[in-house]
Amino acid sequence: MSKITQLLHSLEANQIACAVISDPVSINYLTGYYGDPHERHMYLFVISQKEPLLFLPELDVARARQTVNFPVVGYVDSENAWEKIKAVLPKTDFQQVALEFDHLNLTKFRGLESVFSSEFVNLTPYLNQMRLLKSSDEIDKMLFAGQLADKAVSIGFDAISLEQTETDIVAKIEYEMKRLGYDMSFETMVLTGTNAANPHGIPADNPIENDALLLFDLGISANGYMSDMTRTVAVGKPDTFKEEIYHLCLEAQLAAQDFIKPGVTASQVDQAAREVIEKAGYGEYFNHRLGHGIGMDVHEFPSIMEGNDLVIQEGMCFSVEPGIYIPGKVGVRIEDCGYVTKTGFETFTKTPKTLLRY
Amino acid sequence: MSKITQLLHSLEANQIACAVISDPVSINYLTGYYGDPHERHMYLFVISQKEPLLFLPELDVARARQTVNFPVVGYVDSENAWEKIKAVLPKTDFQQVALEFDHLNLTKFRGLESVFSSEFVNLTPYLNQMRLLKSSDEIDKMLFAGQLADKAVSIGFDAISLEQTETDIVAKIEYEMKRLGYDMSFETMVLTGTNAANPHGIPADNPIENDALLLFDLGISANGYMSDMTRTVAVGKPDTFKEEIYHLCLEAQLAAQDFIKPGVTASQVDQAAREVIEKAGYGEYFNHRLGHGIGMDVHEFPSIMEGNDLVIQEGMCFSVEPGIYIPGKVGVRIEDCGYVTKTGFETFTKTPKTLLRY
Repeated sequence: MSKITQLLHSLEANQIACAVISDPVSINYLTGYYGDPHERHMYLFVISQKEPLLFLPELDVARARQTVNFPVVGYVDSENAWEKIKAVLPKTDFQQVALEFDHLNLTKFRGLESVFSSEFVNLTPYLNQMRLLKSSDEIDKMLFAGQLADKAVSIGFDAISLEQTETDIVAKIEYEMKRLGYDMSFETMVLTGTNAANPHGIPADNPIENDALLLFDLGISANGYMSDMTRTVAVGKPDTFKEEIYHLCLEAQLAAQDFIKPGVTASQVDQAAREVIEKAGYGEYFNHRLGHGIGMDVHEFPSIMEGNDLVIQEGMCFSVEPGIYIPGKVGVRIEDCGYVTKTGFETFTKTPKTLLRY
Repeated sequence: MSKITQLLHSLEANQIACAVISDPVSINYLTGYYGDPHERHMYLFVISQKEPLLFLPELDVARARQTVNFPVVGYVDSENAWEKIKAVLPKTDFQQVALEFDHLNLTKFRGLESVFSSEFVNLTPYLNQMRLLKSSDEIDKMLFAGQLADKAVSIGFDAISLEQTETDIVAKIEYEMKRLGYDMSFETMVLTGTNAANPHGIPADNPIENDALLLFDLGISANGYMSDMTRTVAVGKPDTFKEEIYHLCLEAQLAAQDFIKPGVTASQVDQAAREVIEKAGYGEYFNHRLGHGIGMDVHEFPSIMEGNDLVIQEGMCFSVEPGIYIPGKVGVRIEDCGYVTKTGFETFTKTPKTLLRY
């Protein structure tokens, strides 16, 4: 059964006969076609008892037709997209139309209001639900993206030198991966010394510090699926305090990984890592959720955090990434993404987590 | 007068006492702080007679406080952001609240509806209007970003070889620019032969074709401002037809550039290029608008296209990029971005447009 048919079945069970998909990643998930319309319009119309319809900029029509086997309609910039949509849709008088509330902006929503005089309901939970449990084919793709992240971080490790800056190492990693044909799934972070103490630090022309920790956070996008990993390594001889913080973070990361299995809740998984750090007295320095879902988006549903009672099931994929950030002193984060098995959790990335020394 | 004060004045003139800014680029434009909250929340609240307030993930608070001189409030993932916003805002009972309709998604809109029981009006036109006319300081930054694009494309030209693939050349360009400390403003395109006949083609491991045209479309992000340029060059000896198409596209590009001055309309500028291509019988192969505004976003207001009666004014910045795409045969696009002067149009990029041969 195609993913579009699956989606239709779950919508029909709730008396919804039409869905409008606007997020390019959702469209890719459902159809295999990926394109970014930027500020232009791209919508996949999924309608009960009818063929789907993909509406997008004329520029992208030829490429879309190579991928999908249902009607593709283009529009040029000087056309009124809403009028054209109204004219080409086989039907518009639905009682309910489902839209991606987490993606659709208000201007496009107003446009769709001019097409449909329907009640609008939120499609996001339906798509989240479909994307939440990954098939074995999807897990294979994510293992492959994970292998590539391991490769990318090893290129970074090989480039460590006191003569290099954070940016030099980022450039080296991205160059080698691009030559292999792969894009990063987000902006690569290489953060030295106290710059790593900022969980959203930005790499700059800071020379790699000696006797300090060095943090790498990176991922690869391959075949539509994303990887995401963080490693923190030692350069020279960091003092005992920094090494203690590293080992505390690792203990928390492993505690959460070991805890994960079907039946526990997302909140409990977060707590498994957090209590290790809290008991040691550093709870205030772990100021973000433990993890995020991952798949075709590098951050997707669900959040692994306090208050989320979602029950973990086989096939869920998410990150486990505790961090300890003590401003001006030290920053450590250790992250693997992985998938839930019948009995536990397997990581997509395999780079060792004993404190590596350069 | 600060940009926030300017915005407040134009809102107050329309009896709007509160604006919520959600686009990270708009927040950067108004405050100088840039951060990407991904799926988390980040809002700048601008309120008449009160201090502004920046609300964002706790992770980003320290960095934001280094930049802005007004209150910054953070929240952690396990907190309810909407309740926290309600608690920290000095006032919420406004008659009208302006929101970025072109940016805000429906889920976040529903959240803001729980904070304000106000009428919501569209802030996007106010911000577009502010950002439309660039100051001389902004134009200096865009000239600098343009210089870097010239540098990047010259790195690409130097890398042309029949032994290289499209992706190899992309990797080389991005590596050299990253080492200089600059990110590309969008995914670099290097498209060989008929791959360039797809206006949204994607670089792959295609070896550079001989006796064909080779298209480069790239830009740099520097100091918050973007560049964007396209050059098409000859590799070996392309046949006469390909060269004719190149020269036709160049004629159209120069015709539009020469036409631009304060007082003409965006539609007329588009037409100045389009009629050159139409007269030669290739109108159907120029299937996109002539250009887009550029500034802190690589695509921003206004569109230079048929039907847009916006009157061109000094200080507007946009692209002029006609293209001719004949599927399976040849693709050419030539693009410079520039700024409108008192009497004409100056480009940010200076790479020659005579057909360069490699």
